[in-house]
This record gives sequence, C-alpha cells and structure tokens, in this order.
Amino acid sequence: MNAASSTRLVMDAYGGDHGPGVITAAALDAVKRHSALEVTLVGPDGDVSGNLAGADPSLTSRIRFVPAETSLDSGVGPVGAIRAGDRSSMGLCLKMVADGEADACVSAGSTTALMALGVRTLGMLHGLKRPALMARIPSTGGFTSMLDLGANLNVDAVQLVQFAIMGAVVCARDGRENPSIGILNVGHEETKGHSVVREAHERMQQLPLNYRGFIEGSDIFAGRVDVAVCDGFTGNLVLKSSEGLARMLVGELKNALSGGWRSRIGAALAGGALRGTLERFDPAQHNGAPLLGLNGVVVKSHGSAGRAATVQAVNEAITEAGKHVPERIQELITRFEAVTNS
Amino acid sequence: MNAASSTRLVMDAYGGDHGPGVITAAALDAVKRHSALEVTLVGPDGDVSGNLAGADPSLTSRIRFVPAETSLDSGVGPVGAIRAGDRSSMGLCLKMVADGEADACVSAGSTTALMALGVRTLGMLHGLKRPALMARIPSTGGFTSMLDLGANLNVDAVQLVQFAIMGAVVCARDGRENPSIGILNVGHEETKGHSVVREAHERMQQLPLNYRGFIEGSDIFAGRVDVAVCDGFTGNLVLKSSEGLARMLVGELKNALSGGWRSRIGAALAGGALRGTLERFDPAQHNGAPLLGLNGVVVKSHGSAGRAATVQAVNEAITEAGKHVPERIQELITRFEAVTNS
Repeated sequence: MNAASSTRLVMDAYGGDHGPGVITAAALDAVKRHSALEVTLVGPDGDVSGNLAGADPSLTSRIRFVPAETSLDSGVGPVGAIRAGDRSSMGLCLKMVADGEADACVSAGSTTALMALGVRTLGMLHGLKRPALMARIPSTGGFTSMLDLGANLNVDAVQLVQFAIMGAVVCARDGRENPSIGILNVGHEETKGHSVVREAHERMQQLPLNYRGFIEGSDIFAGRVDVAVCDGFTGNLVLKSSEGLARMLVGELKNALSGGWRSRIGAALAGGALRGTLERFDPAQHNGAPLLGLNGVVVKSHGSAGRAATVQAVNEAITEAGKHVPERIQELITRFEAVTNS
Repeated sequence: MNAASSTRLVMDAYGGDHGPGVITAAALDAVKRHSALEVTLVGPDGDVSGNLAGADPSLTSRIRFVPAETSLDSGVGPVGAIRAGDRSSMGLCLKMVADGEADACVSAGSTTALMALGVRTLGMLHGLKRPALMARIPSTGGFTSMLDLGANLNVDAVQLVQFAIMGAVVCARDGRENPSIGILNVGHEETKGHSVVREAHERMQQLPLNYRGFIEGSDIFAGRVDVAVCDGFTGNLVLKSSEGLARMLVGELKNALSGGWRSRIGAALAGGALRGTLERFDPAQHNGAPLLGLNGVVVKSHGSAGRAATVQAVNEAITEAGKHVPERIQELITRFEAVTNS
C-alpha cells in the first residue's frame, strides 16, 4: 500500500433514505476497489458493524466503526444541526476531518445541515464567502460542471465569481486544461439579465480565466462550457427538473416500446443501445456533489443514493482529497483577491 | 361564418428567425383550419403579400397586409422598442389590439420588446404589477402550465401570487376545474426557500384556490400540479435547460440506434413508438406562450418557430381571445385584491 496515495475517508452511516446497510455495503465495495482506502463509518449506535459479518477480513480490516450519539433528520434546519453538533453522526464526521483524523467526508444527510455544520466545524477557506454545491451534468461529448446547486439561494456577484473559480479548479483536477466558464442567464447578450449576473460578468472579464460570457439553459446540455455558474435556487431547480424530465422520458419510452409486437421486438433488438444512452442520464450514475469552499473535502451524496451511487460519491471524495482541491482553490482565491473581494 | 366565434388576429410578420415567408405560410394554414379567422399581417414593407401569390383566393381573402415603417432587432432593449413604438411591426400589432381593431396578437419578436411595448400600448389589467410569460410543459399524463418564463427576472411575493392566479385562469380555460397550483422551491418543506417564496406561500394559503404548497423541479414533469409558479430568471433557465436536454436525448438516441444491425432493425420496428414519445417533448410542438396580465391577448411565438409551430401560437391566441382570458383574470385579481395588493 502506497502511503502517498492512501486516503482516510469518513462516512456518515446514518444520512440517506436507505439507512446504514447500504452505506456499509458501499464502504465494502469502495475498499475492494481502492487498495489504499481506509473507511470510518460513523453512526449513532453499534449496529453498523453487524452489516460487515461474513465479509472478507482483508477488506473489513480497513473499515472501522465509530459511534455517535444521534443522527440528524432530513428536515433539520441549520440551527438544529448546529445544536446537535458533533453528537450527531454528520457533525462527528466533519470534526474528524477538521482534526486531521480523516482526509475527506461523505454524507447523504440534509444539505442544509451539511452546509451549516461544515462551515461551523471546518470553516471557510480564507476570502471565500460561502460554500457551493457542484455537480457534473451529462452533456453532448462529456459533462458540464454546474454550481451552485442549492447551498446559496440568494447570491451576490462576488459569490458567482467565487463559484466560477472553484468550479474551474475542480475541472482542472479532472484533467481539463484551462476550463471554459459561463454564467447562466436568460440570453447570451451582455444587455440581458439582472444586476447580479451583469456585475459578475464584468468581474469575470478582469480575470485571466477562460471566461466565455453568458450562457443559456440549453448550453448546459450542449456542452458549450466546462463550468456553468448560477445561484443555488436556480441551479437546484434546473438540476431537479432535468432529472425529472430524464426520468419521465425513460418511463414514457418504456411504455411506448411495450405497446405492440413491432415495438416489443424492436425494443428487444435495440434495447442495449437505448439502455446505454438512457443510463448516461440516470442521476444515480452521477452521484457525489462536492461542497466546495470549506477548509476540507466534503462530498454530499444523494439522499436516495443506493449502493453503487454511494460508491460514486466515495470516488469523488478520494479524487478531491488526492488532488488537494481545497488547497488549490485557496491558491486561486488569494491570487485573484482584488476581483473576488467585494 | 359565425360572428360570435370569429377572431380578428394580427401577426407580426417580421419577428422570428425565418422571416415573413414562414409567418405568411402559417397564416394561410391558420385560415384554412379556422373558418372564422381573419388575419392581418404587419410588416415593414410590401413584400409579404407576394408570399400569398397562387394561394386559394377563398383563403387569401381573409388575410390582409398592413405596412409598418420598421422592424425590431432581436437584441433590442425596452428603451429602443418604446422609441420605435408603432412605427415598428410589433408596435403596430399591439396598437391594433389596443384600438379594438384586432382581438389578439402573435409575435415571434424579442420578449423584452414585446413586454415593454405591450405594457406601454395595452396597459396592465387593474391591480396587476407586471405581465408574465406562460408555457405548457409536457408532463406525465398531460401538461404543467409554468410561469413566469423570463418576463420578470426579479419578483416579489405579490407577483408570484398574481402569476398563480393568472395561470389558474388559463388552466380553467383549458377545461381543468379548480386547477392545482404549486410554487417552485428547493424542497417541499415549509422551512425551505428564500423570503420571497415563503411570503408567497403564506399569501397563497389565504386564497380559496387549490394551492398545494411548494413543489420541486422534478414535480414539473411528474405532473404533480396544473400550474407551477416561479420567478422569470429561474423559469427561463428551467425551460431552456429542459428543451436542451430533450434535444440532446433525441440526438443521442438516434446515434445509439444507428450503431449496428441489431439497433438499426430494432429502431426500424420500434421507430414509430419512439418518435411519438420524443415528439411530445419537441419544443416546436408546444409553441405559443401567452403574455398574461396585459389588457389584451398577446402570444409570444418562439423566435425559431417554423410554419407548424407558428400555427400552434395562432391556435393559442384564438382560444384565449374566445375564452376572454384577460377579462377573467381581471375578475379574479379584483376579487382577491386584499391578498394580491402589497
């Protein structure tokens, strides 16, 4: 095992709709896949370790269990989350990252709670206002990284610029040199949009980044830029409506293709190709949204994520930790301080 | 011809990417389809009538041409639009509605210009703040009517309530009794969202309407409500990103289904069913967005609308005029004045 590439990951075993069984199973899959991975599962009682009974000891030896007093409800607000603090499984996970006992944290708990506790426990990187949630959206020819997806419902121009910088760092980490950036707006023209996007547009033009100006909603899926920036209210609704549309199309196509012998035979023959295409747009295939801007690596897993999707979130956390994403964001934010300070 | 059901429609022949030829052809299709329809085409010079040469005289007798001095660029701002006023084809169309010479107007010109000139020329209904653009989004089992789609980038709570009332009137016109209404937000819980959606939520609960609370992006396509309400910035991005996703999926499915003999034979057999499903999500099949709240019927056609799509916008205008949508909106806004006044 190479110490340089090893990752100590902490997982919130009690976030998520499926309970600790799925998260434990995903941890087992992850240590099988990553030979230098060590996982700590944090849950409010001792029953998580029971899920590992019968598994290969060479794998379970890299998974340990830490008890937490309580878990957070999915509906918990920021105040409730902070009050529970590190008595909760989520809070304890974040504390382990803050204390240097873990390199990265994955939780499928409430985004609101993760953000409140993340800011409180890890703190923001110097010069950054608020964290942002990012996701990779499938597009023609690859992916578009979009942020924010709901961590900030109201933003100012400086925050949009900070989102752009954070997104560019993650894209560069993915191997894209000099990633292109767009600000989402109701039109491509400079005269379009409200004052926040227009001021962000002006600030972006002062930075030595590959900024391409305003983009429209359709440009996300056309793959026109690597990074698409918007406020969290809009980003959340764009993401969830797209997921809903993809789900509906898959459902309607299945119905259409079971509606007669021609369709059924056709579907049997073409099924593999159809499935491959539609799976690329399955939200579960793209799980793991980094919460960027914190002084540590935190990845939000979808509440409804199953075993395979949870492993995706783990992969995301491992990559971010290995590429030192928080440190690289700090470098750029400091370098561009003149533009990113309000 | 029944005078009671006749409609005098005015069309901006110079809005739209395809020029007056497509709009004239659509006018011809529309008078063929609606025996009591009379169309006035407004354009900046005399060449529109040339497009009708050779057409059936029993149809062309119900199409007349009115010249306008100029047309508006797609990038024109509100100031430029108002300065051009009724010297422009769009402005002249709106003036004919204001003067009672036409019952409804269709334009594929700039939304910004249509809104500025619409407010200036027709005026708002009493008690309404600003017009809103509405569209029908395909959903499981039918359609969701969504507004605003870009006419108002920043809104307050009263405006969201007014959008809800206007959407409900149009839905009732479509034959849906007591249409259900939701406010788009980042979660279903009452504690979610920013102050504007939360205040609108409280106001909506005071109205005797079928209000269902907050809905998420995925609920638009799941058909959870008849009317989905949001600010125009978010609505525009949700609509355009969904159109982009649908277009990308159609393209990728076509590629996938031409990739080998099994897929190709399968696609040939199942092609009809596939096409039927995908066409339901083709934006061109759902053209014609009413600009609601004005003292007159105005329908925005997509800039890229072709002949068939333009006819859809004409159908929308005819239905709205026939059902007296502005008058019915005025009734409800006046009845609910206590809640819809800020």
